[in-house]
Amino acid sequence: VIVGPGDDAAVLRPTTGMDLVLTTDALIENRHFRRDWCRTRARSLELARAVGARLAAANLSDLAAMAARPRWAVISIGATGRDTEWLAEVQRGVAETLERDGAALVGGNLGRAEAGEWYSLTLAGEVEPGRAWTRGGARPGDLLAVTGFFGRAATFGRRARAYWSGRRLPEWTRAFAERWRNPPSRIAAARAMAESGAVTAAIDVSDGLAGDLAHLCEASGVGAEIDASSKPADGLEEEFPRVSDERRFGSSDDYELLLAVDPNHRAACESAAAGAGAPLAFIGRVTAEGRRMLGLRGEDGRVVALPGRGYDHFARR
Amino acid sequence: VIVGPGDDAAVLRPTTGMDLVLTTDALIENRHFRRDWCRTRARSLELARAVGARLAAANLSDLAAMAARPRWAVISIGATGRDTEWLAEVQRGVAETLERDGAALVGGNLGRAEAGEWYSLTLAGEVEPGRAWTRGGARPGDLLAVTGFFGRAATFGRRARAYWSGRRLPEWTRAFAERWRNPPSRIAAARAMAESGAVTAAIDVSDGLAGDLAHLCEASGVGAEIDASSKPADGLEEEFPRVSDERRFGSSDDYELLLAVDPNHRAACESAAAGAGAPLAFIGRVTAEGRRMLGLRGEDGRVVALPGRGYDHFARR
Repeated sequence: VIVGPGDDAAVLRPTTGMDLVLTTDALIENRHFRRDWCRTRARSLELARAVGARLAAANLSDLAAMAARPRWAVISIGATGRDTEWLAEVQRGVAETLERDGAALVGGNLGRAEAGEWYSLTLAGEVEPGRAWTRGGARPGDLLAVTGFFGRAATFGRRARAYWSGRRLPEWTRAFAERWRNPPSRIAAARAMAESGAVTAAIDVSDGLAGDLAHLCEASGVGAEIDASSKPADGLEEEFPRVSDERRFGSSDDYELLLAVDPNHRAACESAAAGAGAPLAFIGRVTAEGRRMLGLRGEDGRVVALPGRGYDHFARR
Repeated sequence: VIVGPGDDAAVLRPTTGMDLVLTTDALIENRHFRRDWCRTRARSLELARAVGARLAAANLSDLAAMAARPRWAVISIGATGRDTEWLAEVQRGVAETLERDGAALVGGNLGRAEAGEWYSLTLAGEVEPGRAWTRGGARPGDLLAVTGFFGRAATFGRRARAYWSGRRLPEWTRAFAERWRNPPSRIAAARAMAESGAVTAAIDVSDGLAGDLAHLCEASGVGAEIDASSKPADGLEEEFPRVSDERRFGSSDDYELLLAVDPNHRAACESAAAGAGAPLAFIGRVTAEGRRMLGLRGEDGRVVALPGRGYDHFARR
């Protein structure tokens, strides 16, 4: 960082020979979180920190899906009032989450929102030329793998008000809450798996498995089949039955990766992920059955249409 | 652009040896513009295009203030509905304005805003290492210069509803409206002036001359004096009396540059700006009278406090 926050723009020194990767993602009040969940000021500031952590995680997840190394971010805020303490906590949540992956918050902009605060983060990273993952490289026969597992954020979401207002909740809710407040970063795992050369396509699953699998298949011109019996491999297996199929495959905010993996390099991919401390579960395979053909294979071998669909920001609910 | 819109992030190829410059700025409905200004659909889509142009201009102005060359941008949108035609026009306004300076819109994110749409753009550019302008280099004795002139956007703002609703207005309003709809870019002039080596400090005046001059003086540890008799040099001199001192020095959205210029290199600076087609008016000088000492020098030599202050997003109006 040559010139940091406080000037018209930040000036940064890139690594020679690396490509630049840019992404942007936003969290919006009353869509991604509600301030009225909290009954105390202390709890509210914890929520602010979590909002910042999730905003950073959403952007980190995009960079992980490109196998990029995060470097610098700028934040744009639409605030509804002068709650500087809340805004400082959001930014602290962003900054400390970025820092864990070696990235820095280097600038920002503050405007006044009419209703519903919003926080938009743009994250810049670097990747070796020609080494960025895309959505378009999956081939029939590739395996499908996921880091973590999906549907927990949406499952927690139904109990978020109870959690943030401080009510007693069963233990599993707290485990899900912990993930919601601090989504694990998949950057290190992505960088390690990229070195293994095993991954043929990748996408960040921020809108739900079925929807984002469809995006990957469309970009690659392939179909896919998920095994109904596939299970998470991330230490929360016992809580798995809490997650309905609708949430497992449908809209959820889990910030995990979906990968197409060359079956000849499965072992290298698994050991790279394990070395980086990331769970990796193989959940299905890429098929040649044409675009948008997404199936769910039961233990009896029968294949039905995959339930769930991507998050539609403008659907009436 | 190695990977453009449609993947998890954009992948870009930087110029070897250049530093990276990052900025972000947002436009917010009912703050920076009102959709209900317009009475017809056609007019409304023209406004959308202008909103996009102004969003790009706000960010380009930040990069001009660093003497950087714009390259790539990502947009984050909070939309209140499914008006895809309006959103497409906003993005077209952004893209075509960026393109005129050689930059490209390479990705984005769309979320749902509760009330008041917002458009946040992050612009990345490049600058030769060690050559970025900052706010902090002004020295006593330097001259103060501005590209364009200030207060017109705010002066037009009072007539914006009449203009966009299609009412007949005096000619000067249309001249101001043209600037509002398509703020001139100062990128080429900034790059040329940077080569002249004449500029010691720079700031983008997006919040009003008095406020941003104060920022520059604070960063440089100096004072400043503006000549009350200074006039614009940009072809709209005749309309100058329409602009009150309050708007000339106070909050306005003109996206112009304020520069501190080494008096020994004034001629080089002037010819660089002229060569790039940018007006440049010398309006005062940097003083050693301590921080935040901002004066207005009358033709009789008397100095009074500079009127106007920076835009406060959270002031009650």
